[in-house]
Amino acid sequence: MQRKSFGQMPCPIARSLERVGEWWSILILRDALAGMTRFDEFQTSLGIAPGMLTKRLAALVEAGLLERHRYNERPPRHEYRLTERGRDFRPVLVAMLAWGNRHFAPEGASVQIVDAATGAVAEPIVVDRATGRPLTEPEYVITAGPAAGEGVRRRIAARATRTLPADRRGATAQPGSRS
Amino acid sequence: MQRKSFGQMPCPIARSLERVGEWWSILILRDALAGMTRFDEFQTSLGIAPGMLTKRLAALVEAGLLERHRYNERPPRHEYRLTERGRDFRPVLVAMLAWGNRHFAPEGASVQIVDAATGAVAEPIVVDRATGRPLTEPEYVITAGPAAGEGVRRRIAARATRTLPADRRGATAQPGSRS
Repeated sequence: MQRKSFGQMPCPIARSLERVGEWWSILILRDALAGMTRFDEFQTSLGIAPGMLTKRLAALVEAGLLERHRYNERPPRHEYRLTERGRDFRPVLVAMLAWGNRHFAPEGASVQIVDAATGAVAEPIVVDRATGRPLTEPEYVITAGPAAGEGVRRRIAARATRTLPADRRGATAQPGSRS
Repeated sequence: MQRKSFGQMPCPIARSLERVGEWWSILILRDALAGMTRFDEFQTSLGIAPGMLTKRLAALVEAGLLERHRYNERPPRHEYRLTERGRDFRPVLVAMLAWGNRHFAPEGASVQIVDAATGAVAEPIVVDRATGRPLTEPEYVITAGPAAGEGVRRRIAARATRTLPADRRGATAQPGSRS
């Protein structure tokens, strides 16, 4: 696949995309978070071509999301264990699960997240750890951080002129060219 | 790009991936959520080839995440507005932002999410809307939903045998072949 490298972009979302690399990687992480560790487990679950799976696993090891461990000497067999960085990807998957269930599951949820003790179905939302408040707009906004360079600052400054929804912006409120 | 269609898989994560389609789509959604609506805005922000941007915008309209509106008659000009489904993607991006900042921003955060009123930096976590409890393991588990078919049920049943971390599982606790 030919594409621009997102890893060079300062945006943390772009950098995340660079590291998970490809749709298959996200589904491999999904299965790893569900406890799978072995090549044949991933292959059976995903129906992925072996060559592609080998490549994707190597990329996830390289990116520090999985670690390769030998669990058998003869014959040599390896398993892939999540690192802390890999485990930390779970909230992204949970947010995707919620979005997928809300918008692309007309027949009802095939997969859901439940309280292990009670079986109560959870509804995932994203909040601030300290205050517990939902990170929704307009209460919370995405803004430049301390390490932001000129490019990010310019992009975010341009956003400030667009706080109204498009259909409530008058023609006179159009920002100029952003280049 | 040749790949399997994930839209046919019952997993809501796979279906989400099918709809956002490609890394560029996620970055377009990022910019749309930041208020951008116009072709040239996306192009300047992303440095994306015009042909690719046209394709990605059309795919996002097709998937129901953006709507195309004419905002000028002569010359004809269009803008792309987020639908409710598109706006609902924000928690996925916020979770990615947090993951990227935690693991791929050694120089510090370039982008962060802050309380619009106080400027306090938020730390995004995913919780259950009803109880406010973090959706972490082992308290919350991903399980089959009411619409789950045979395949999903089998995959999730296989997970139940893997609740211990790999390095605490003895050789005798290995599950058999999953096929």
